[in-house]
Amino acid sequence: MPGQIGKDDMHAPKSQQELNESIAVIRDLLEKQKVVENLVHSNDSRHHDLVESLVHRQHLTSLQTKLKRLHTADVADILESLPLEDRLLIWNQVKEKRGGELLLEVSDAVRQQLVSSMDGEALLAVLNQMDGDDLAYIADDIPEPILQQRLQSLTREDQHWLRNAMVYEEDTAGYLMSNEMVVVRVTDTLQQAAEHMRSLSEIPIHNDKLFVVDRFGILQGVLPLQSILIHSPMASVGEVMARDVVKFSPDDDANKVAQAFERYDLVSAPVINERGKLIGRLTVDIVMDYLREENTEDVLGMAGLSGEEDTFASIWHSARNRGFWLFINLLSMFFVSRVIDTFEDAIAQLVALATLMPIVASVGGNIGNQTAALMIRGMSLGQITPEILPHLIRKELGVSVLNGIALGLGVALFTFFLYSDIHLALVIASAMLLTLILSALVGLAVPIVLEKSGRDPALGSTVLLTAATDSLGFFIFLGLATVFLL
Amino acid sequence: MPGQIGKDDMHAPKSQQELNESIAVIRDLLEKQKVVENLVHSNDSRHHDLVESLVHRQHLTSLQTKLKRLHTADVADILESLPLEDRLLIWNQVKEKRGGELLLEVSDAVRQQLVSSMDGEALLAVLNQMDGDDLAYIADDIPEPILQQRLQSLTREDQHWLRNAMVYEEDTAGYLMSNEMVVVRVTDTLQQAAEHMRSLSEIPIHNDKLFVVDRFGILQGVLPLQSILIHSPMASVGEVMARDVVKFSPDDDANKVAQAFERYDLVSAPVINERGKLIGRLTVDIVMDYLREENTEDVLGMAGLSGEEDTFASIWHSARNRGFWLFINLLSMFFVSRVIDTFEDAIAQLVALATLMPIVASVGGNIGNQTAALMIRGMSLGQITPEILPHLIRKELGVSVLNGIALGLGVALFTFFLYSDIHLALVIASAMLLTLILSALVGLAVPIVLEKSGRDPALGSTVLLTAATDSLGFFIFLGLATVFLL
Repeated sequence: MPGQIGKDDMHAPKSQQELNESIAVIRDLLEKQKVVENLVHSNDSRHHDLVESLVHRQHLTSLQTKLKRLHTADVADILESLPLEDRLLIWNQVKEKRGGELLLEVSDAVRQQLVSSMDGEALLAVLNQMDGDDLAYIADDIPEPILQQRLQSLTREDQHWLRNAMVYEEDTAGYLMSNEMVVVRVTDTLQQAAEHMRSLSEIPIHNDKLFVVDRFGILQGVLPLQSILIHSPMASVGEVMARDVVKFSPDDDANKVAQAFERYDLVSAPVINERGKLIGRLTVDIVMDYLREENTEDVLGMAGLSGEEDTFASIWHSARNRGFWLFINLLSMFFVSRVIDTFEDAIAQLVALATLMPIVASVGGNIGNQTAALMIRGMSLGQITPEILPHLIRKELGVSVLNGIALGLGVALFTFFLYSDIHLALVIASAMLLTLILSALVGLAVPIVLEKSGRDPALGSTVLLTAATDSLGFFIFLGLATVFLL
Repeated sequence: MPGQIGKDDMHAPKSQQELNESIAVIRDLLEKQKVVENLVHSNDSRHHDLVESLVHRQHLTSLQTKLKRLHTADVADILESLPLEDRLLIWNQVKEKRGGELLLEVSDAVRQQLVSSMDGEALLAVLNQMDGDDLAYIADDIPEPILQQRLQSLTREDQHWLRNAMVYEEDTAGYLMSNEMVVVRVTDTLQQAAEHMRSLSEIPIHNDKLFVVDRFGILQGVLPLQSILIHSPMASVGEVMARDVVKFSPDDDANKVAQAFERYDLVSAPVINERGKLIGRLTVDIVMDYLREENTEDVLGMAGLSGEEDTFASIWHSARNRGFWLFINLLSMFFVSRVIDTFEDAIAQLVALATLMPIVASVGGNIGNQTAALMIRGMSLGQITPEILPHLIRKELGVSVLNGIALGLGVALFTFFLYSDIHLALVIASAMLLTLILSALVGLAVPIVLEKSGRDPALGSTVLLTAATDSLGFFIFLGLATVFLL
């Protein structure tokens, strides 16, 4: 997300408590507002109408005053944590002045909702508050004709930037970079560099270093602000700058970018093209947003939620978002049900099998989930390489054998205690051990297969994994029982 | 994690590719090294011994050369992605010079392993490379007697800092803050402020602004480096500084700190005590580390993994780490098994019930997991407040009714197709709808109950939830079947 945001730090609250208080007041005003609106709508006495309308306006004014004092990021947060109706009420109070910044700050789902709540004219008015850099970030969520209309009024330079930026795929450095940066020549003196900064109408945020280029725009190094302060103003940029720079190509994977920012504790970093020319700047705030999104994708994806889901999305929208993986789950369970059906005779002869079989399947699913979660974590940290797979397989086998023996013993005791049948106890213990070993391997395989097939290794992993471990668990337990008990 | 790290940016690789190449070379050297060591151990000819020992030493030298060129963060990464044996081999090459920095960079699990691989003297030598700030961060992982020995050789000031810092609980601002910061007086001129910076032997990283205090050490504002460059050197700090500052108290929750850093795009921020006195500094690198850890905790915790697990931890250690939740899972399934047992007669009369019952339970578990994942995400973003709970409950009920109808229809068709029994089909459809509705409520409740009881809302959520949804699914389906079919 480009650099516009946060420049109005004056609105920042002095403490978390102050922010919470503001939010409470706004919620309170919203409540009153709704009560008044209901009165206005339900009451038909003209006199009443007038009184209420005055109260109405008074509430709106205090709401506006309160909102005006809040940092844009806080208003975005409030928008996200309100039900649709209240959300639009607030949005209408703020869109005129801060609509552009707010569209950048809110989550994708909320942005789409706000955009679709406005007509073309209102949307265009909000888009006019944004520069090319900001527009590139949200372009996907704007209807094509309105976006084109907005593009025509951009400067030629911004149009060029925007068209280039829109080419990069999501989750690449090119998509995340901004064109706001302070660039100096390698032949300048430090004093000239400082003067250049002074001459700028607006200094981009996270400007911890200036980027140094030669006369062809080829990146030569970086000049930390501290160096300017520490060295003599007459020294040349080329002498003082750091030449060994962590830099990125626009095609670099966003996850690699995030890892590099974490690893080398970067605040900003240059992006260069294949000829070494400086083309953009990455900043730590964008990287943090990206990390937060990745986290959300992992947590939600594992449970089988494809899209980011706004807490206040419509029920219909949410039902569809979750329905896909529920449906896959249902289909896979049809298969599992057929596996059990194969052993119908065994169950008819020994009903205890039906009572005990979910134990084996459930613990298998759990160990598979643990392994898959470790793989997903390791993959997002870039730790899972082909060379270490054999090691991982050995380790997961070892862990599941140990736990399989312990849990197998537990389930055998439980079974023997209930049914006083040593053979049944032995069968369920062996089934537990075998299922746990195979489930661990399934847990290793599922995220790898998902990634190899070009998907997010987390997405739907629990659903796919449970289908496999349930089938395994039921098949192994009922199969062993058929062979050894009947 | 305090500020020592990253000051040696000279080692930073020029690109991700270069880093990967270095890692490949190191892996290769490690392989050769192991082959040689095996030869040395297995071969008994004295002449051979000598030759091998030379080759051995040659490999070690190229390994050291290669390691020396790598950034500390990259060496830490390599340590984390190697099996134990190789890990210690590398560690022994680097601990003398960079052991202190490396201990800060590696994950908790790896740190504990490295610490326990050294005797007291070697450990003390590594600890001597660290200052009080760094020691506070890793104090929990160091054996008490050795830590005390190290403390005695600190300056009085650092000892004082360390004892204070160790008081703060994990996951608070006080625990994350560092004492490395550049402080200036409100009455200084900008020139004096710049001179003060110049006089420091080392400038802490992420020093985007200086902290301004009065003569009692009370925070008055912050002075961004840019302001020093932009304004006249004769201006006073008090005139130029920003007074409206995002600041923290040492007891602030780390999650709130992370949210504030994201929201207000901070690079560094002051921590003040209850009297307003400046006591420490928080930086964005620490916040990013914290976010990464939280992500790990969510992903692993949901699957039932209590501790951060090193990919290369010993099998024994991993088995215990995962065993706890597997055991809870087993116990809960004993209960589920007893629920099914209540309906033994029904199953004996109609074996199809055993075949179909896992379908209902599994889809219930899935919808519960989806809801729980959304709750966990919302809670970590601070969006779940008591006021919006009624709204959430209504929404989850709506979503599960819609999906319950769709999936109930699906399972009814499947059942009718297989068993041509309209009553059975109706029973399973109603069971599906009812189970999905209740499972969604369970999915809402589990993270809340975990948090209210002072635990991480993610930890073990899937295990607890599945126990509840399985019991519900089996009970509702078998119960309805008993009432309406038998």
